[in-house]
Amino acid sequence: MQSIDLNCDMGEAFGNYDMPNDEILMDYISSANIACGFHAGDPEVMQRTVSMALKKGVAIGAHPGLPDLQGFGRRMIKITPAEAYQITLYQIGALSGFVKAAGGKLHHVKPHGALYNMAAADAALAKAIVQAMYDFDPALILYALAGSEMINAAEFKGIKTASEVFADRTYQSNGQLIPRSEENALIADEASAIEQVLSMVKNQYVIAANNQKVVLKAETLCLHGDGLHAVNFAKTIAENLKAEGISIKAPVI
Amino acid sequence: MQSIDLNCDMGEAFGNYDMPNDEILMDYISSANIACGFHAGDPEVMQRTVSMALKKGVAIGAHPGLPDLQGFGRRMIKITPAEAYQITLYQIGALSGFVKAAGGKLHHVKPHGALYNMAAADAALAKAIVQAMYDFDPALILYALAGSEMINAAEFKGIKTASEVFADRTYQSNGQLIPRSEENALIADEASAIEQVLSMVKNQYVIAANNQKVVLKAETLCLHGDGLHAVNFAKTIAENLKAEGISIKAPVI
Amino acid sequence: MQSIDLNCDMGEAFGNYDMPNDEILMDYISSANIACGFHAGDPEVMQRTVSMALKKGVAIGAHPGLPDLQGFGRRMIKITPAEAYQITLYQIGALSGFVKAAGGKLHHVKPHGALYNMAAADAALAKAIVQAMYDFDPALILYALAGSEMINAAEFKGIKTASEVFADRTYQSNGQLIPRSEENALIADEASAIEQVLSMVKNQYVIAANNQKVVLKAETLCLHGDGLHAVNFAKTIAENLKAEGISIKAPVI
Amino acid sequence: MQSIDLNCDMGEAFGNYDMPNDEILMDYISSANIACGFHAGDPEVMQRTVSMALKKGVAIGAHPGLPDLQGFGRRMIKITPAEAYQITLYQIGALSGFVKAAGGKLHHVKPHGALYNMAAADAALAKAIVQAMYDFDPALILYALAGSEMINAAEFKGIKTASEVFADRTYQSNGQLIPRSEENALIADEASAIEQVLSMVKNQYVIAANNQKVVLKAETLCLHGDGLHAVNFAKTIAENLKAEGISIKAPVI
Repeated sequence: MQSIDLNCDMGEAFGNYDMPNDEILMDYISSANIACGFHAGDPEVMQRTVSMALKKGVAIGAHPGLPDLQGFGRRMIKITPAEAYQITLYQIGALSGFVKAAGGKLHHVKPHGALYNMAAADAALAKAIVQAMYDFDPALILYALAGSEMINAAEFKGIKTASEVFADRTYQSNGQLIPRSEENALIADEASAIEQVLSMVKNQYVIAANNQKVVLKAETLCLHGDGLHAVNFAKTIAENLKAEGISIKAPVI
Repeated sequence: MQSIDLNCDMGEAFGNYDMPNDEILMDYISSANIACGFHAGDPEVMQRTVSMALKKGVAIGAHPGLPDLQGFGRRMIKITPAEAYQITLYQIGALSGFVKAAGGKLHHVKPHGALYNMAAADAALAKAIVQAMYDFDPALILYALAGSEMINAAEFKGIKTASEVFADRTYQSNGQLIPRSEENALIADEASAIEQVLSMVKNQYVIAANNQKVVLKAETLCLHGDGLHAVNFAKTIAENLKAEGISIKAPVI
Repeated sequence: MQSIDLNCDMGEAFGNYDMPNDEILMDYISSANIACGFHAGDPEVMQRTVSMALKKGVAIGAHPGLPDLQGFGRRMIKITPAEAYQITLYQIGALSGFVKAAGGKLHHVKPHGALYNMAAADAALAKAIVQAMYDFDPALILYALAGSEMINAAEFKGIKTASEVFADRTYQSNGQLIPRSEENALIADEASAIEQVLSMVKNQYVIAANNQKVVLKAETLCLHGDGLHAVNFAKTIAENLKAEGISIKAPVI
Repeated sequence: MQSIDLNCDMGEAFGNYDMPNDEILMDYISSANIACGFHAGDPEVMQRTVSMALKKGVAIGAHPGLPDLQGFGRRMIKITPAEAYQITLYQIGALSGFVKAAGGKLHHVKPHGALYNMAAADAALAKAIVQAMYDFDPALILYALAGSEMINAAEFKGIKTASEVFADRTYQSNGQLIPRSEENALIADEASAIEQVLSMVKNQYVIAANNQKVVLKAETLCLHGDGLHAVNFAKTIAENLKAEGISIKAPVI
């Protein structure tokens, strides 16, 4: 039976600022990437989100970001590989404290935002992040952009990976995402997004913007957690996958 | 053979701001309380300090503080016990990431500054901090003010403790420190400070400001890490202890 | 003709976290207290909020808070009067930069959250905050709790004040608010809240929880900006005041 | 009589972390660029540094940086021109609060670190920073790298400029600095550094690393404030300039 993991960034509330979808989304996903306090999240949010994930049986991942709360970790900061190693290790450690205290086990790591994008293209950053994971626990699974330097670095190190794909993003013929700055970066139409997902999961390819077939590993699908439509879309995707006989489950550690 | 632990707050540099004594002091102490990024320290400093401590065979503790970098964790922030639990767990986890990655083992926890003082007197905060330690790893040792609510809470929970004493602080007849706001709070004279230490270690009492003998557990001695005299004082204390046949070693986990 | 000022805390969004009511509320209020980046707000939010207020003709005030983004400035931090002076001056200056650049004029200062509450009861903090206002611009108006040390300090210094009252908070017989920790601290019923407002504005007294009449200056009414009901309540209050022939306007600088 | 301005970054202490040279250096410089809390500095340090500068008759400038305390504002953060405008205006405003309260007048603005370097090469960022200065006070003088986009943007806007040169940095034949990452970026030899300064001031050219003469405006010389040699070097430069009949003074606003 075919399966795919549905992952979602969780715990991106902060202090007085809520993220009301988190609890509901836990019902549809198999993996939660929990923010660790650098781009979002705080110790209270982390404790609460870990507890929710454990209750729902959702696999818990660390979601380390750049130290940029105002920019939500989305602004590129030129950090060295050593700094990438250090901030990744710090944040994995911090989240793992809550997971351990709650009787759970950290399952994966998915870098956030600009860190995710920078490391997807920069082999030195990718290697540093993978090394931090490896040094903390070599059994951790890396969630990263299918075909990226991140995936390469993890495979080289012998760390397990889950190649990530996106429902609502368009692809270039080299397998990379079309940047958000481009007009056709997003698939606004829900039906097309779902079709893209099903095609990627069933066929392991995606139709690029230029209509070429691009072979792509689709092991985990990123769902967006914010916005009004996030919950409905999660529900619809989950229903469609099930209807196609595709089970939703996290990769086995 | 009698022994005492010498502990020192370490890794309290931040970014561009150095703490140049740290490396030298590692030669004289048996326990390093390493800042975790809330009141001081950053991921780079933490990695570097953990590495130094491991190289010198110094026991590594987490030194969690209040989230107040400008105030160096010394300003009282009215937090709830739940918040105390969360910030302690977060910081223990973060530091333990570096310790684990470097092949070491976290040994103890010593809260910092205002968190240390607040929890010394507030049973609910003390209980929350101890619970965070316990939930993370029940083998962790709590370093806290001799006779404080912290020590009580840890003993109640069954966590091992090291009662902390100070060389250069004066004591009240109830065993508490004379607050820094008082004129006679500090022992400026080095010889008197050393005498106080030796008396506490050998006799397990201290002479309070009103000349009363106060029974006191003296299991770990706090050395200051900053200032010009810190290194000399550490060296002198270490020599005096050895001359008296008192060995310097961290409590066994 | 009687009049009262309606003030609301504005610009308390931060980075990715929105405060969607702000723009709508500007239609009902006469004074906006704009967060300055310490407890909420960031340079982008400040610029945007100042611009909105200017467009709607709403008087602009600085809303300085304690440096505690996670706690939203609501956690008491034990700062010295010197620190209160410094953080107030810093934040007034920062906001005034945006006001000046947009061609406006800073009108008032209302401390936020724990800073507001601490200074209401602590004469030394109150004096320091008032001094910061005075040193920046002696024409600034202080918005503060009616009958508080803040009001006293401003009057002593010769700074203009607007005594603040609350629609949905209950009062003690000494004119102070019943703390939020008490069960009967809030007036949940909208009709009662509006009645309390009208009584305070028309009669300059409030009925305390123990049914005593308490004389009270009611020069500015604090409206809450967050929550689903904030906009409706603002609208209803504004309508009721107008129906009673009470005009809504900011104090003249 | 020839003259040059000597400027130095000041007020880059933070909380518990001191910058002990600041007070002494004030005796040798004519312009202080005071950090505004984003890359260094805090409200207490700002107040103290402004007060020192006023006492010594040193011209006060805002020294806005990127929001990156750990990186000391030296790590490139990819911000938009709108964000550059906002963080510049915020920081100018914040510092001007202290200057105004102390009875002084803000004289100039010099961006810090990565913001300085990014804006030197990026016309859109340069324009945004200049616009923030202009909107706050069109009389402010921009201190920026000689020949940079910053200088161009200010001249275009009609803002007064002071072209900055460096004693201990080597130059490329296009007038730009040799990046710090290159081996020959720094002039370690004090005599050569002083010779370079005198040549730049007297002749308005510098000898580039490839021995070409490069015409260069030298209106303000940047002195480093940290390190053991900073004070001695400042003193020596000041003495050498005076010996050559070159007076040290800030540009007139």
